[in-house]
Amino acid sequence: MVLGRQAAVDAATAVDVRRPARVPVPPPRPFIGTFWATVKETLFPDDPFRAVAREPTGGRRALAVIRYLIPCLDWVPSYSFSTLRSDLVSGLAVASLAVPQGVSYARLAGLDPVVGLYSSFVPALVYAALGSSRELAAGTPAVVTLLFTSMLGAAASPTRDPQLYASLVFTATFFAGAFQAALGVLRLGFLVDFLSHAAIVGFMGGAATVVCLQQLNGFLGLPHFTRATDLPAVMASVFSQTAHWHWQPFLLGAGLFVLLQITRYIRKKRPKFFWISAAAPLVAVIFSTVLVYLINGGKHSIQTIGSVKKGINPPSVQSLLLSSPHTWLAAKTGILTGIISLAEGSAAARSFAMAKNYHVDGNKEMIAFGAINMVGSCTSCYVTAGTFSRSVVNRDAGCRTAASNAVTALVVLITLLFLTPLFQHTPQVALSAIITFAMLGIINLRTVVHLWRVDKVDFCVCIGTFLGVVFGSIGVGLLIGAGVLIFRILLSVARPRTTALGKIPGSMVYRRMDQYTTAQETPGVLVLRIDAPVYFANASYLRERITRWIDDKEERIRAAGAEESLRCVVLDMGAVASIDSSGTKMLEDLRNSLDKRGLRIALANPGSEIMRKLDISKALQLIGDQWIFLTVAEACDYMQTNCNIETELQNVASPDEMV
Amino acid sequence: MVLGRQAAVDAATAVDVRRPARVPVPPPRPFIGTFWATVKETLFPDDPFRAVAREPTGGRRALAVIRYLIPCLDWVPSYSFSTLRSDLVSGLAVASLAVPQGVSYARLAGLDPVVGLYSSFVPALVYAALGSSRELAAGTPAVVTLLFTSMLGAAASPTRDPQLYASLVFTATFFAGAFQAALGVLRLGFLVDFLSHAAIVGFMGGAATVVCLQQLNGFLGLPHFTRATDLPAVMASVFSQTAHWHWQPFLLGAGLFVLLQITRYIRKKRPKFFWISAAAPLVAVIFSTVLVYLINGGKHSIQTIGSVKKGINPPSVQSLLLSSPHTWLAAKTGILTGIISLAEGSAAARSFAMAKNYHVDGNKEMIAFGAINMVGSCTSCYVTAGTFSRSVVNRDAGCRTAASNAVTALVVLITLLFLTPLFQHTPQVALSAIITFAMLGIINLRTVVHLWRVDKVDFCVCIGTFLGVVFGSIGVGLLIGAGVLIFRILLSVARPRTTALGKIPGSMVYRRMDQYTTAQETPGVLVLRIDAPVYFANASYLRERITRWIDDKEERIRAAGAEESLRCVVLDMGAVASIDSSGTKMLEDLRNSLDKRGLRIALANPGSEIMRKLDISKALQLIGDQWIFLTVAEACDYMQTNCNIETELQNVASPDEMV
Repeated sequence: MVLGRQAAVDAATAVDVRRPARVPVPPPRPFIGTFWATVKETLFPDDPFRAVAREPTGGRRALAVIRYLIPCLDWVPSYSFSTLRSDLVSGLAVASLAVPQGVSYARLAGLDPVVGLYSSFVPALVYAALGSSRELAAGTPAVVTLLFTSMLGAAASPTRDPQLYASLVFTATFFAGAFQAALGVLRLGFLVDFLSHAAIVGFMGGAATVVCLQQLNGFLGLPHFTRATDLPAVMASVFSQTAHWHWQPFLLGAGLFVLLQITRYIRKKRPKFFWISAAAPLVAVIFSTVLVYLINGGKHSIQTIGSVKKGINPPSVQSLLLSSPHTWLAAKTGILTGIISLAEGSAAARSFAMAKNYHVDGNKEMIAFGAINMVGSCTSCYVTAGTFSRSVVNRDAGCRTAASNAVTALVVLITLLFLTPLFQHTPQVALSAIITFAMLGIINLRTVVHLWRVDKVDFCVCIGTFLGVVFGSIGVGLLIGAGVLIFRILLSVARPRTTALGKIPGSMVYRRMDQYTTAQETPGVLVLRIDAPVYFANASYLRERITRWIDDKEERIRAAGAEESLRCVVLDMGAVASIDSSGTKMLEDLRNSLDKRGLRIALANPGSEIMRKLDISKALQLIGDQWIFLTVAEACDYMQTNCNIETELQNVASPDEMV
Repeated sequence: MVLGRQAAVDAATAVDVRRPARVPVPPPRPFIGTFWATVKETLFPDDPFRAVAREPTGGRRALAVIRYLIPCLDWVPSYSFSTLRSDLVSGLAVASLAVPQGVSYARLAGLDPVVGLYSSFVPALVYAALGSSRELAAGTPAVVTLLFTSMLGAAASPTRDPQLYASLVFTATFFAGAFQAALGVLRLGFLVDFLSHAAIVGFMGGAATVVCLQQLNGFLGLPHFTRATDLPAVMASVFSQTAHWHWQPFLLGAGLFVLLQITRYIRKKRPKFFWISAAAPLVAVIFSTVLVYLINGGKHSIQTIGSVKKGINPPSVQSLLLSSPHTWLAAKTGILTGIISLAEGSAAARSFAMAKNYHVDGNKEMIAFGAINMVGSCTSCYVTAGTFSRSVVNRDAGCRTAASNAVTALVVLITLLFLTPLFQHTPQVALSAIITFAMLGIINLRTVVHLWRVDKVDFCVCIGTFLGVVFGSIGVGLLIGAGVLIFRILLSVARPRTTALGKIPGSMVYRRMDQYTTAQETPGVLVLRIDAPVYFANASYLRERITRWIDDKEERIRAAGAEESLRCVVLDMGAVASIDSSGTKMLEDLRNSLDKRGLRIALANPGSEIMRKLDISKALQLIGDQWIFLTVAEACDYMQTNCNIETELQNVASPDEMV
């Protein structure tokens, strides 16, 4: 027997005879130690304070902490003229997009247009100091603005009660910031990852579609502007006013829209002409403003924005409603907008950083944006984040540091101080055109097709969210997406895959038989591979599934009339990352029931956590640690050479112990 | 290069040179096919209709379906006298426990004691026909009765408005049945598995503790009986009535309790004397009844049950409140009690079946109990399930089929028809003693200690649930348990483990370096193992974590001043069960950023799902399928022999595609 064992060991792993390969049981570690290790790995996977820990003295450590919290201290000292030049260019490019976009989105959010400019000034300035991404440009995400109208519009009408509505928006912004900062400080940023890419694509697409449809109001110059966010309502409102459709604004809007589309096409073809598309919205605004001024648009029923008041952000602390009947609604809106803007922002920051090979601490970014929004809520700004549209322009313009945001802020400041009167004659349809143009950029059909081809579930999530947003409401869409995803996670936990392994001819390698057609079964041995952690949620399923595997195999053997009956089951634990008490219980039960059927059970390649748990829970003694092998090959060879079942005391766990 | 490759292949897997080992890309399967396969594996893992499918003709198949739905048809034809004898004995044993238990629990649930007898008659009869477990004995779980008082008590007081309260209980029972049946029909039984063993232990323990404390009212013969379920309230009610404490009932109760405990001790020592502890409650009732009758307990302030009305279950259909203000509350109570009784029942059925090596279809059992409860709700019964206490007696008495339930039902029927008047003089304290006795059996300290040693998280779940129930309410307890568990699942999904692998000397086996101290790094190659499916929820974390592994390794190499720099990263995909679109995206991004750093990435042993996804998503072309290896060993050898990075077009995914 010993010889056979050794032969197996040698054959399998060619370990020298003096030290047969064994699976070690790790020494018991103190609970506190493992606990802190887990917490660290969970909350600080990127080890943010490594730099701090490296510093020798306390003073330098404090300095390092400050540098960690205020990233601009990293690049300011070494800031050179060449860097300044590229930051200037990119800052100007972003500004030329930010000004018209700000005005348009503010209108979309049901706010005074100037609030859009406010929101492009202070936040950009703060982000220049706190932002750790080089390419991200702070701005108001279009989808968020939509959320405001659809959620807060219920409590206060932007048109009839603008005062209350505005203060609700600022309150929501404050909550958004507080929530984001809290997530960052508690290092819970990973919760944002549960918003899957598919759900975001579907959500953005749906929101963009709705926004585009809403712009029909602007294009047709309709008197009554609906803020409903579902397709049927918007269509109804548009077609109920056929009498007031006008061709003049439509003509102008369509013209501008085509112009913008052409610039986008140019940028796609020639990336170095990025500035054309970056400046296009500004050009469109200027051109249409001048045109309307010359032809006196009012006569041709072209509505204009009207006067936009001068001056920098007024304080808005006093208008925060922290103890009103609507506070809870504002909080909900804030949390939702906070999460969604975070999802967009962190996705953007991550992808840019990866393209340039530097690391962005997601949680730090959250704290930064939390601070920005809290400051913003006190200076008449609404929720800001790192938006894709602006950041892409920023990157293409070759920005080098977050200073480009400061440049943008400066330009917006100048606009606020001197240029706002020029918006007097800007036609609303120009803004509609800009919004539609931006929104069409968000709708991402390529990814949808990709999802359908790669992952059907993701596709369902995406389409479900999209339809939910378009035909129901933003909330419905998000619920659909989240529901499908959580159900998928639960399923994947509750229904892990088990597969039979076979030996690849002429090798010591055992692989899945459904994948490798050449793999061959080992006579008398059933090799099963469990493909997931063994949890309370799947323990009983696994027990039944494994039993079924055995039944099937025995049936096949009986059908084939082979003299060689099934004698042992080898479980490949290589893919079992962890196991809990229900899991060890399951293994004990399985071992007992197999014992009754005269079958031997063996484990191959269990991880150290598994070994520790098995050892503590006495399951290891029950199975017998001579039945734990380093590799499947070793187990199989050993099994084949000598698999005589010792009839042992059948200590089945009494049901009383179950509950 | 080709030679080196071959050498590696031969060394690693000794595959003959003509057919180098490759990881095949599975042929594209039709979506519908895979979809149905998944659905089948998810909802019908135990393949319940195998027997049906085997039948040749349609008629015989119909018969097989009927036999599937009505399990008693399996054993009735072959029912022998010897089977009958053992079923008679066990049925009688269960009945002698069921009668006093029924009366006591009914009182605990705030119902007329006779309802407890009703609930032991009809359900037991129905289960004899529909039950597929041989040992399970249908009865009312103690914890469920507690749920009724604590949840429905809010809407109607059992003492002041017994009529409304009773009909609420029946309505809840109906909803419980409907919910259970629905779960079974939709094959969603696995959702019950999410109630972890630890949570159930904690919950049961907490409930039992509360019930025991409530019995102080009975032991002390207090006039005012509180139905509050939290420790402070119960204690307050007990100590607010110190003036009414009586020693006589306490003496009697304590005596009976000690008697019962002794019988339990005997059974533990000598299992074949099971009938002593089985009959003990009945003996206690008879003895105390006679005693109280002789000494005229009323004089000694010993409260008795009073008259219990004769006759079998009256119909209660008319009292179902399906359209009242309380319907929603009843539904909630029903769903909760339904789930909990299912959890207890299926746990019991499973463990018994496993001990005797036969299979119980969990979903079928759910349909059975659903039917039982729906029938019961129309015949004045409240929620029943397979209870441990009775089932253990049933098993120890050597039952052979579900017919023992019919025997129990028969005995209860006789009791209902002729013996109820005898309860006239039964002292309530006797019931308190029986309840306390049963509850102490539920509290399971051994498991709690076991949990602490095996799994700290499970221990927290258990204790959290326990404390929640004892000091808060049943709902609070359940929320705590569920919360911790779901958070754990989300964490395990969001924070998969990555480990560095090393080669075990003198073998081709690569194992975790933190587990196998002898494992050695391969110079210039970093072997990482991903221990979980790659999902939207952990993709970005994995990307950052892997990057950090690489940084650390390069730092170590620099510190060591080794001339051999890191050249390639091998990802062991063996434990990656599945991957979604975010996952493939992550691999593409990772490959691109590593490419920029002049690092080569290779995958070892990806499963067929992974290969298919990589192939469809074009990630395979990006990585290059010559960089996919069958084993880590093969990959490492190939990498070491020739790892010259081809400078390829750096097609980084543009951020626009991200959202």
